[in-house]
Amino acid sequence: MRNIKVVLAYDGTRYCGFQKQPGGLPTVQGVLEESLARLAGREIRVTAAGRTDAGVHARGQVVNFFTDWTVPTDRVVAALNGLLPDDIAALAAEEVPAAFHARKSARTKTYVYTVYNAPVRHPLHRLYALHVDRPLDVDGMRAAVAHLAGRHDFSSFQNTGRPVASAVRHLYEGRVERDGPFVRFTFRADGFLYQMVRIMVGTLLEVGLGRLQPDAVGAILVARDRAQAGPTAAPHGLCLEHVEY
Amino acid sequence: MRNIKVVLAYDGTRYCGFQKQPGGLPTVQGVLEESLARLAGREIRVTAAGRTDAGVHARGQVVNFFTDWTVPTDRVVAALNGLLPDDIAALAAEEVPAAFHARKSARTKTYVYTVYNAPVRHPLHRLYALHVDRPLDVDGMRAAVAHLAGRHDFSSFQNTGRPVASAVRHLYEGRVERDGPFVRFTFRADGFLYQMVRIMVGTLLEVGLGRLQPDAVGAILVARDRAQAGPTAAPHGLCLEHVEY
Repeated sequence: MRNIKVVLAYDGTRYCGFQKQPGGLPTVQGVLEESLARLAGREIRVTAAGRTDAGVHARGQVVNFFTDWTVPTDRVVAALNGLLPDDIAALAAEEVPAAFHARKSARTKTYVYTVYNAPVRHPLHRLYALHVDRPLDVDGMRAAVAHLAGRHDFSSFQNTGRPVASAVRHLYEGRVERDGPFVRFTFRADGFLYQMVRIMVGTLLEVGLGRLQPDAVGAILVARDRAQAGPTAAPHGLCLEHVEY
Repeated sequence: MRNIKVVLAYDGTRYCGFQKQPGGLPTVQGVLEESLARLAGREIRVTAAGRTDAGVHARGQVVNFFTDWTVPTDRVVAALNGLLPDDIAALAAEEVPAAFHARKSARTKTYVYTVYNAPVRHPLHRLYALHVDRPLDVDGMRAAVAHLAGRHDFSSFQNTGRPVASAVRHLYEGRVERDGPFVRFTFRADGFLYQMVRIMVGTLLEVGLGRLQPDAVGAILVARDRAQAGPTAAPHGLCLEHVEY
């Protein structure tokens, strides 16, 4: 059996997340496994680096799967893209050692959250950025995100739904940048809790809108209490950017 | 009667162009006039700077309309955006002199055509950029577009369907730029013939792909023969960027 690693990009708009759902709801995994089955002539089950939520996008999702399918790796990308719908694409594929596991082997994952910060909503940015109509205080959000960097228990930034043994994660990078009307949040960590990025962004936006002091984010982190953090920011601003192995 | 000018942005993906069509096909004009009628309590007919084709987008379309509607101009944007679907938005509105005509008063219009130039298609760029999988020769396309700048008879770059008295237009600016995987074509002129930008881009892409010499574009211009130019590039890469008055 060969172990194949594939890098994927997708527009999450019309999917109920990456992970296969009961009841035939459209999922990225479902569509991908269906295309792989057609190519390989038998069922293939993929493992993904990150189980992105409904509406979340990806530029660098990584999956792996085991197969005795004999197509050369350099043909996998073209073969897959010939079958996948236009909102999902394979960007690269390679054969990897048997021990490679898309999620467990990942050293860091990088997510980017994009906000379109302008008084009036923009039709050409509505699918991939959250619209915030009041001016955001980027310096304040930068001061706030500094409290989150490092190794911490991130229980305050986790929604219920996917229980984990430990809520300790190492956030290697938390950045906030303005680029014209866009404000981009970049987070790189050894792992993320359920909806952690969206809750961090929702909390930072409270700071950006002046409803919360930057230092309060440090207190929220220490409290280990989801109720103290801000709302969960909408999914469509979020993108799984890169997975490092 | 007041004359109101409104700047619009829209995602043209699901519209059969700007201009109202018989048979109830979805058009930007149809949706806009419906919202205006609901706000003003009577029928309003708008005039647009550019009648964008089916699938073409806008960041800076301009319309004007006459009305005795008494809502203050600074409320028109919010009122309209409350009714318009999320793929159309009013960005600005102002009262203008009675002589202002969105199309006839325009001094120049600027269109931008975006190509995503990478070996593999990308789901997150599919709606607003044409995918070209082979590397484009940007220098060659720059040399070619230089033949088009200036005042010329652009008959070679006009499709049938909208007869005009004269095919002479002044192209003030024709630029080709690479920005990472994107190649952007910018055209500013006193007016454009039917599908002129898309035919110019289709012809320049022939140069970019090495199928046509840059100097051939000068000969095509002089020939005043549509058959000699390249294909009409797909609409979804095109955006009406700005109208200058």
